[in-house]
Amino acid sequence: MAAVRRGNGNGSRRRAVLSYAQAGVDVDAADRAVERIRPMVRRTFGPRVIDDFGGFAGALRLDYDDRLFARNYREPVLISCTDGVGSKVLVAIAARRYDTVGIDLVAMNVNDLLTSGGEPLAFLDYLAVHKVDEAQVAALVAGVAAGCEQAGCALLGGETAEMPDLYRAGDFDLAGFAVGVVERRRMITRALVRPGDQLIGLASAGLHSNGYALARRVLLERAGLPLNGVVRSLGEPLVEALLRPTRIYVRAVLDVLQRYARTAVSGMAHITGGGIPGNLPRLLPDNCDAVVRRGTWPVPAVFGLIEHHGVAEDEMYRVFNMGIGFVLAVRPRSAGVVLRALERVGERAFVIGQVRRGRGRLEFR
Amino acid sequence: MAAVRRGNGNGSRRRAVLSYAQAGVDVDAADRAVERIRPMVRRTFGPRVIDDFGGFAGALRLDYDDRLFARNYREPVLISCTDGVGSKVLVAIAARRYDTVGIDLVAMNVNDLLTSGGEPLAFLDYLAVHKVDEAQVAALVAGVAAGCEQAGCALLGGETAEMPDLYRAGDFDLAGFAVGVVERRRMITRALVRPGDQLIGLASAGLHSNGYALARRVLLERAGLPLNGVVRSLGEPLVEALLRPTRIYVRAVLDVLQRYARTAVSGMAHITGGGIPGNLPRLLPDNCDAVVRRGTWPVPAVFGLIEHHGVAEDEMYRVFNMGIGFVLAVRPRSAGVVLRALERVGERAFVIGQVRRGRGRLEFR
Repeated sequence: MAAVRRGNGNGSRRRAVLSYAQAGVDVDAADRAVERIRPMVRRTFGPRVIDDFGGFAGALRLDYDDRLFARNYREPVLISCTDGVGSKVLVAIAARRYDTVGIDLVAMNVNDLLTSGGEPLAFLDYLAVHKVDEAQVAALVAGVAAGCEQAGCALLGGETAEMPDLYRAGDFDLAGFAVGVVERRRMITRALVRPGDQLIGLASAGLHSNGYALARRVLLERAGLPLNGVVRSLGEPLVEALLRPTRIYVRAVLDVLQRYARTAVSGMAHITGGGIPGNLPRLLPDNCDAVVRRGTWPVPAVFGLIEHHGVAEDEMYRVFNMGIGFVLAVRPRSAGVVLRALERVGERAFVIGQVRRGRGRLEFR
Repeated sequence: MAAVRRGNGNGSRRRAVLSYAQAGVDVDAADRAVERIRPMVRRTFGPRVIDDFGGFAGALRLDYDDRLFARNYREPVLISCTDGVGSKVLVAIAARRYDTVGIDLVAMNVNDLLTSGGEPLAFLDYLAVHKVDEAQVAALVAGVAAGCEQAGCALLGGETAEMPDLYRAGDFDLAGFAVGVVERRRMITRALVRPGDQLIGLASAGLHSNGYALARRVLLERAGLPLNGVVRSLGEPLVEALLRPTRIYVRAVLDVLQRYARTAVSGMAHITGGGIPGNLPRLLPDNCDAVVRRGTWPVPAVFGLIEHHGVAEDEMYRVFNMGIGFVLAVRPRSAGVVLRALERVGERAFVIGQVRRGRGRLEFR
């Protein structure tokens, strides 16, 4: 493996070792990719990042008393999570378009982290490739950096691993890790949700990053649709719909939380693999059910296309997000004001159901 | 992808979706693997972990005032890093031995993190497989959990991604992320090292997790040595030497830092890809050189074996750790006491060189 640490500003360059290169590892190409990446990474650094303190790890101040940035946590709780992009990378590989899956990677992690009520502070990526292609690595990490800018977190580090015997030529995999913080008293836990709470769904941008094993099999293999062909029902080439980045809900939801906090928002769920049935119950305490009514939000055309090519409707809802990327449980008296606040910051938001007394189950009408 | 979140105690089980299973994704096998993993993961939880608060992310209290665990940071700095195991996974795959590379994964990350002077708090792993093999996943994550126990950090989360079209049958990749914290005033930064400081090297356990592209090519392909055959110079089967886990230096080094802190230790380097020449200079400020004398520590037999099969000695030092896994720069008056303290907690430690006035370079004698 040529392991190239990135993103914490260290300028250390590895020597090119002749027979290491012969073993399939090109340290120079990795170094050049790092150089191209650096400005994008630095754009994500806020005042919290401690730059270039040594180079083996990334560092970020949690509390600071500086005049402009004063912020202090009384009982800080660290929140962290990890996720990948899954089979969506195979679409990027097939299309040779590498600039958006990095956004998906950040989204999958920071939206998860957000459900705790915490703010993402830092992100790190692990990129594994057959061989470092400078342009490919730079495009992938540019996507990660763009996602971090959207989420307001620092791209604090990264690793590019070159493994010619594990990955086929042109292939890559991408994993990410987010760390954030939340004041303990403000943590959103499952216990807060109560009967009567309204469920507000935020529109997804499309498939996001789940269900691609099925989507690829149905659209590309079974139906044989060409990636670059325009699909009439989509009004765009298939590849555009398949690679559209996962929406990052961080700024919109943190904005609502800062205004209304726990007095309004009682729970959150990121709708990923397993769809609404697989994820919404995770915000429910044992004594509550959720009732969700289909038809209360628009379902993007890409889901209709997949269903049309031979997937049952019920199954569609169990695999895909079907147009809802994130759900907030909100106190009934605050539902209107939260809905409008979310729309003001650019989200499309819908009341998709309610919480009622029950046993932790979802009723899908 | 069947994305199975693990390790933060949530019991959510995904439904098996028939045609999702037909697309190559077996959600039930992933669920069963999660069940087997859970007890191992929970063993790594200290009092800091907030268990089962919701399930989308892992949470850990940074400060706590509870009677037994009081701990408060004045200016906490978050430290985080990411790394993989590289081509060492290919040896594990070939040998079908999955229980140790998880230790390597933790080691590669927490040893990096340690160089800042910080303590690792939490770890997360990303495991990507062709298809979930319950026993394989459980063994891999058991290794990760064992590494976390050695490092004293919580295995706060993990992701198992099933990607049949990206990974070949039996193959897997493994990436990890560590997050830790250090009091700002106690951070070890490059600026602390001064001329006269002594360089103490800690013995490695062997190859650790670097140089496997070259080691595999030389030993397995060029020399054709069988993985399971006993090599006389090693006194053990080759596979034992190749899979011996990376040493985790966290407890030993934190013990020294807590006793002597900045008054004694001025810098640290984790010796990974690039060997001593590639990593030791990273602890040097611009006005210092390091002088390292070969022969001041024993070189494990596995390096002699690789050299014997056709790698030049100089190159060996540029690719492999050659028996030194971690280096501390220590004030001259403290070198003896630090050396003895490290030996008392079970490390083999050697004075391998000194720091002198210079330009950030390494002289290797």
